Amino acid sequence: MRWWGWGDREHVDGLTPGALAMLRERVGISTDPHPPVTLASVDLAPSRLGESDLARLRALLGAGSVRTELPERLLHSAGKGYPDLLRARAGRPAAAPDAVVYPRDRERLAALLDHCVERSIAVVPFGGGTSVVGGVSPQARAHRAVLSLDTAALDAVLGLDRAAQTVRVQGGIRAASLERRLAEEGFTLGHFPQSFEFVSIGGCIATRSAGQASTGYGSIAEMIDGVTLVAPAGTVATLAVPHTAAGPDLRQLIAGSEGTLGVVEEATLRVRRAPERLAYEGYAFADFASGFEALRELAQQRALPDVVRLSDESESEVQLALAEGRPARLLGGYLRARGRGCVVIIGTEGDDRAVRSRAGHTKRVLRQAGAAPLGSGPGKAWLHGRFAAPYLRDELLTLGVMVETMETATVWSNVEALHREVAAAVHDALEAQHTPGIVMCHVSHVYETGCSLYFTVIARQDEGREIEQWRSVKRASLDAISAAGGTVTHHAVGEDHREWYSHEVSPAGLRALAALRTQLDPTGIMNPGKLLAG
Amino acid sequence: MRWWGWGDREHVDGLTPGALAMLRERVGISTDPHPPVTLASVDLAPSRLGESDLARLRALLGAGSVRTELPERLLHSAGKGYPDLLRARAGRPAAAPDAVVYPRDRERLAALLDHCVERSIAVVPFGGGTSVVGGVSPQARAHRAVLSLDTAALDAVLGLDRAAQTVRVQGGIRAASLERRLAEEGFTLGHFPQSFEFVSIGGCIATRSAGQASTGYGSIAEMIDGVTLVAPAGTVATLAVPHTAAGPDLRQLIAGSEGTLGVVEEATLRVRRAPERLAYEGYAFADFASGFEALRELAQQRALPDVVRLSDESESEVQLALAEGRPARLLGGYLRARGRGCVVIIGTEGDDRAVRSRAGHTKRVLRQAGAAPLGSGPGKAWLHGRFAAPYLRDELLTLGVMVETMETATVWSNVEALHREVAAAVHDALEAQHTPGIVMCHVSHVYETGCSLYFTVIARQDEGREIEQWRSVKRASLDAISAAGGTVTHHAVGEDHREWYSHEVSPAGLRALAALRTQLDPTGIMNPGKLLAG
Repeated sequence: MRWWGWGDREHVDGLTPGALAMLRERVGISTDPHPPVTLASVDLAPSRLGESDLARLRALLGAGSVRTELPERLLHSAGKGYPDLLRARAGRPAAAPDAVVYPRDRERLAALLDHCVERSIAVVPFGGGTSVVGGVSPQARAHRAVLSLDTAALDAVLGLDRAAQTVRVQGGIRAASLERRLAEEGFTLGHFPQSFEFVSIGGCIATRSAGQASTGYGSIAEMIDGVTLVAPAGTVATLAVPHTAAGPDLRQLIAGSEGTLGVVEEATLRVRRAPERLAYEGYAFADFASGFEALRELAQQRALPDVVRLSDESESEVQLALAEGRPARLLGGYLRARGRGCVVIIGTEGDDRAVRSRAGHTKRVLRQAGAAPLGSGPGKAWLHGRFAAPYLRDELLTLGVMVETMETATVWSNVEALHREVAAAVHDALEAQHTPGIVMCHVSHVYETGCSLYFTVIARQDEGREIEQWRSVKRASLDAISAAGGTVTHHAVGEDHREWYSHEVSPAGLRALAALRTQLDPTGIMNPGKLLAG
Repeated sequence: MRWWGWGDREHVDGLTPGALAMLRERVGISTDPHPPVTLASVDLAPSRLGESDLARLRALLGAGSVRTELPERLLHSAGKGYPDLLRARAGRPAAAPDAVVYPRDRERLAALLDHCVERSIAVVPFGGGTSVVGGVSPQARAHRAVLSLDTAALDAVLGLDRAAQTVRVQGGIRAASLERRLAEEGFTLGHFPQSFEFVSIGGCIATRSAGQASTGYGSIAEMIDGVTLVAPAGTVATLAVPHTAAGPDLRQLIAGSEGTLGVVEEATLRVRRAPERLAYEGYAFADFASGFEALRELAQQRALPDVVRLSDESESEVQLALAEGRPARLLGGYLRARGRGCVVIIGTEGDDRAVRSRAGHTKRVLRQAGAAPLGSGPGKAWLHGRFAAPYLRDELLTLGVMVETMETATVWSNVEALHREVAAAVHDALEAQHTPGIVMCHVSHVYETGCSLYFTVIARQDEGREIEQWRSVKRASLDAISAAGGTVTHHAVGEDHREWYSHEVSPAGLRALAALRTQLDPTGIMNPGKLLAG
């Protein structure tokens, strides 16, 4: 992973001439590029851990599992939110861990937490490091120092139950690595967040991650048969079963705990047979409302495809500018003929018979709702580029352009109002800062009672006050989402959403979670400053 | 509801001559009937609440909302587990509430809890009172007295969102009443536990109830968009949304809390369009394993029907003895021809097209797995008698016969072993007491990674030591279930499963739940003795 942005490899730039022209016209780009600084000019505070501290950690974990080199500390200094990238590219991360540790097994992990309690050292669990909500920022708070606890060495597949279709893994295994291992056995987890190439399974569980195929495969929280959390006060292990009616569901407490209760060390997850066939197709609707009404119909018939991505008018226009070749011509033809329109990508996976029957039914419902089929071109293009957006973000930052996303979910009856009000609030916030921009939205996770709404905002950076500009947009959008009755996040709470979180669970709910935390982590070493206060 | 058994009406006895003959032969029945005592001979301890206590409660809730008459106290003295019925029929409930209260709104409910904290009065939330695990037994423990808090007056439908397909209700509404209201609007909740005629929605949520159609409609926990818990320390209200990634899922903490954290006062639940058509059919398999393997195939194809009920050889034989008319002849013909077999009932609900297509697919998969179709007769018979088993239990008790159920869930790879080991352990326990009996089992909730297993045990009562006999069977079955890796319950923890609960969530998990409880109910007035210690 690049320390200043996304991806671990030379990535070919994705901005097409059409997209650049649109950016120039609608947003404005900087006349001179804003590249990241070089590693040599990065400024990190010195580690607060002395040689005796490090020697103790090495004795506990092994010498190779305790790292203090600048590149290691830098890579673990933040997640991949927009403000994180701004700071990283400028060579000035907001903070840095005093060391990075890689425990290799449950016993060493538990011993490490004991040690950190005793020595008052904060611990930030770090999987893929892709948080966009400040979820891995190394805050020591009241403690002497802070470690980034990288779970990369806890990466074993512990067992595959072919009959039950479950896989038992350690929490640090990467989603991509697990998916490759499962593919060799004819299975898939079906969990493909945009950050798929980097994320760990434990990180996905800790953040209640929903992948691009969550409509069909469920979010990671729905895949958990059993889970083990190593916490400072002990190890919570739930029995791995398909269902239980025994008390509150502790699995759903550990899912979403964001590292504040402990480390997700192991999980038993439901897998599915690898699909024989993927059918991805595009359709165009005259407007956003016709599109989401058609999705509602499919959801309430219990006939949803596995992947759904419906872009509003604004996002469809940007997609067209980014598209190339035949899909672009088809889509362009449709949009030009009508003046506007909305694109939806529909993905259906499974065996031949099921895909034929399900995709056929979807087509009938969408056509009845007025959709025009665009064929498999847009579907293939989407599949090809499904993990590309974070790379594009790096290009935009180099051009002096801000890009941020805000995600929510709400019930069907509220989708239109929420979409309108949040877009208006963000436009207003941008106008107020004299940086008008593009606000676009898509639906990508569909439920029977409603759907997600992911907003993307693109605007020229307000140079010299980029963070303030971002904060103002974030505040406007979250205030509007809360006021409109949407959930404050589809991407975890972290630092960035804390202020709005109590609105969602009520003050008494927040106190209950805090009590739970005090029990599992009495001295508050686990990921201070995230999710809950303190 | 009868105070000594099940049902609120004159119920026609359901034991056929064939069933009686089988009981006589295989279990033995008492030579003279064991009817319940009359109300006049019931012995209840006097209420520990004095006139000043009751006056305060009346001032708080209204005079008609505070009841101390014997029939009220008696009806709220226990749930409907086998030992509860034994004691009730003998006129000697294990305990009784000192008063029964019926708060009429959230404000009065919250004020009542405040009052009970202040006066050290324990509170047992009481919905339908159908707990089979000791979940509503009125235990004062360290407190001065105990109230049964009947939620019957909190029974409003607060709103139906036709687009989102959600209904907002107060927790005390009865499932049957809600279902009738929804039917008028063209919707269904699809939640049909065997206790459907009596249970409250809040009680279902508090016990993570799974209805007979949970395979298609999900368990109640999966229907919750939002929920409100009134607890002594405050009211926890979650935002009603189809999905959230904001922290641990508090909804799944409240679901299953069994009255120990507070009262489920309100919920927003997903509903579905009322099905146009119900297609219920029977099939026969040569053995249990062929049957559950076919269900596994359907589950892992994501092509499950809405209702599935697969009986093992033993239960199928009993079903035959209970059946009458054409279904009995068909089933009898099949079983006699083969010597043994297993019956599965398959229910498919929805619009015409979907039912045709789904039921057709199910038929193909089941036939490929070797099933013989028995037509719609057994399906109709099952639908007709779906809520009848608890009435039969009353008849059996009158005949001096013990009947108890134990339920678990496990992964597919473990079904055969668990089924074998639990049945053997229960048979052994019965033999050891010289009351050999019938142990039968069915699968009625199917998940992708596994299924439920509901065991029913029938044996002649060991007269004079009925409770000890029951305890010994219960212990043998729960020890065997735990040892075999099944969840300790598919029907809540209550009092009866507490001893085995920590096995399921680990001691650290139990401490975490206890901490949560201490936060929400600092003085421990809520349903003492259930779920958690204290």
